[in-house]
Amino acid sequence: MSAKLTPPVPEEIQAQLETPCIVIDLTQTRRNIIRLQEAANRAGCAVRPHIKTHKMGRFALMQIQAGAQGITCAKISEAEVMASAGVDDIFIAYPLVGAFRLRRAAALAPKVRRLILGVDSIEGAHALNQTAEDLGQTFEVRLEIDTGAKRTGVDYNEALHTAQAIEACRGLRLTGVYTFKSLVYQGKPTTDGAAAGREEGELLAEIAMRLRQAGIPITDISAGSTPTGIHVAETGLVTEIRPGTYIFNDYMLYKEGAADLEDIAAFLYVTVVSTPRKDYAVIDGGTKTFPMDIFLNTPPYFYLSYAMIDGRDDLVLTRLNEEHGMLTSLTGVTGLRIGQILRLIPIHICTALNLQNQVYLFDQGDLQTARIDARGMLA
Amino acid sequence: MSAKLTPPVPEEIQAQLETPCIVIDLTQTRRNIIRLQEAANRAGCAVRPHIKTHKMGRFALMQIQAGAQGITCAKISEAEVMASAGVDDIFIAYPLVGAFRLRRAAALAPKVRRLILGVDSIEGAHALNQTAEDLGQTFEVRLEIDTGAKRTGVDYNEALHTAQAIEACRGLRLTGVYTFKSLVYQGKPTTDGAAAGREEGELLAEIAMRLRQAGIPITDISAGSTPTGIHVAETGLVTEIRPGTYIFNDYMLYKEGAADLEDIAAFLYVTVVSTPRKDYAVIDGGTKTFPMDIFLNTPPYFYLSYAMIDGRDDLVLTRLNEEHGMLTSLTGVTGLRIGQILRLIPIHICTALNLQNQVYLFDQGDLQTARIDARGMLA
Repeated sequence: MSAKLTPPVPEEIQAQLETPCIVIDLTQTRRNIIRLQEAANRAGCAVRPHIKTHKMGRFALMQIQAGAQGITCAKISEAEVMASAGVDDIFIAYPLVGAFRLRRAAALAPKVRRLILGVDSIEGAHALNQTAEDLGQTFEVRLEIDTGAKRTGVDYNEALHTAQAIEACRGLRLTGVYTFKSLVYQGKPTTDGAAAGREEGELLAEIAMRLRQAGIPITDISAGSTPTGIHVAETGLVTEIRPGTYIFNDYMLYKEGAADLEDIAAFLYVTVVSTPRKDYAVIDGGTKTFPMDIFLNTPPYFYLSYAMIDGRDDLVLTRLNEEHGMLTSLTGVTGLRIGQILRLIPIHICTALNLQNQVYLFDQGDLQTARIDARGMLA
Repeated sequence: MSAKLTPPVPEEIQAQLETPCIVIDLTQTRRNIIRLQEAANRAGCAVRPHIKTHKMGRFALMQIQAGAQGITCAKISEAEVMASAGVDDIFIAYPLVGAFRLRRAAALAPKVRRLILGVDSIEGAHALNQTAEDLGQTFEVRLEIDTGAKRTGVDYNEALHTAQAIEACRGLRLTGVYTFKSLVYQGKPTTDGAAAGREEGELLAEIAMRLRQAGIPITDISAGSTPTGIHVAETGLVTEIRPGTYIFNDYMLYKEGAADLEDIAAFLYVTVVSTPRKDYAVIDGGTKTFPMDIFLNTPPYFYLSYAMIDGRDDLVLTRLNEEHGMLTSLTGVTGLRIGQILRLIPIHICTALNLQNQVYLFDQGDLQTARIDARGMLA
């Protein structure tokens, strides 16, 4: 397995790492950005990457330089950070609810060339419209549709009714629809990204057509995550995809069949601090370092471990305390030494980065540290 | 249930909150600090609170002012932050392994009155001793014993051998033993904190006695977490306890029978952003806001939800994405409104705080924000 992964940083550079830490391989990161962009270009589909994965201005600018038409954020705080980093086309793909969000969105809008806000309810639209009218502003909005993920988004049958209510708001300009469906195919979790992606694109395009037939000038049809993005783009039915995790990839995407091992560009380095028994060793990262946002032993993605251990398929990480990670051997003997540095691939890199203030950037022999600009923020 | 909780902040102050956010009730926090300290005083046992829960200098100083003899940290970065906040007696209850940790510990030692380092292996002791001798320093150390938690700590039968090896290090001064056992009783998880605490105290005291009989002048016997701390203190067998979570308490401690609802001093406030279906509503906090470091449906602590929803026992939080929390109704109807603010109690407040950059402090009508000084740091 390890043979197929990007090689770890050289020994002498490993010795400089203060663990537990995330090291991002910039060479592989650039490859991931370019490959996705080129595949979308071939499909004639725009890319608006979700920056929730990296939360860093430098990576958003790399994505735009590679051809992305703008970025996607989940939080107003992320959008503010990205705008101050120089990103001027931002879609907040999240229902803008709460007076503080409306106030901050109104303050951000004049600072960027294009700000698009998410709406998924008539109540939300009316509150947003009130803010717009109070300030004499107009907000560009997109209507979120639930195509099966069962989180935010209006139901298929509510879409037209809600869209018409938004159209009636003088302070809002409805230009698009968007959805997040990802690996849900015909209502069930799947690892078949192609089938799920086709369904995602077809469902959303069908709704866009109904709105257009009702006289609502929908121009932007936005769908697609990392597992489904390219498949959605290849349907030719959408105008934009919003993948996020593809920039680094992780253990989850590998288990889902959505990334190869060699595509992984971000790693967690840890130090073995204790070897009290033959069958387990303790590393200096626990639940404050490794995300747990996956259910172990859950089909269709079967996880035996909260991380993949580079070169050690015989070790699993299932028992964690806050700063202790118990690496357990499936053979009964870890063979690990105190002070040994290990490289792990966390299940979910987006939530792993959110646990750190900074990352190491490794670029062809050069190691630097960088702050994670938008991590841990409210709103 | 809600009737027994500390009242939420008043409506007009709730309107100032930017959610998702943690609000700490300082009145209840002070009560928690004082109650634990007084109980330990009655038992004639010192308190060295673990600051991993709050990671804030101001709370460490409150604990010391209430009578704590010093603090406990898990990381060198936490110790550095606490020292710069004015704390001068610090125990890093974690194996100090890795050149960067030794270097930073050596730099910190001269800045505080007392720095105690954790050791749980001969290899670790030798590396620490080498650093001490290279710098002409002496480190005060404590030997960690595994009394059943199966993480760091030497085995009962290795304790004397390892202690003698530490004694032989001219750069190290072995003054104590410590353990973390918490809710493990006779090898099994339990909710009987009293039984587990007695066992924890008895096992550690027995080892301390063996070391003393071998001529090793152990003065400090340190054990006890929030669920077991007072019970350990009441054995009269230990000199110090190290509870951490007691300062705020959480859903986990309540389910474990280690805290009452009225003892909870930290809450997560969220906003309902979407009500797409009758049976669930979406709040603005997901896996980047709510810790998941508990296994759902795991005996002996049965969790139905990643958080307790104040006043709404009919709602559970089990389905989460990064910024979406799907609050699901057990009756089929949530009755929640878009824009509604809810108060939740997360399963684990230590990891919940680690997810935020700042908290709100509520003190008898006054609301302020404060940075979480040591959150998200490496090493």
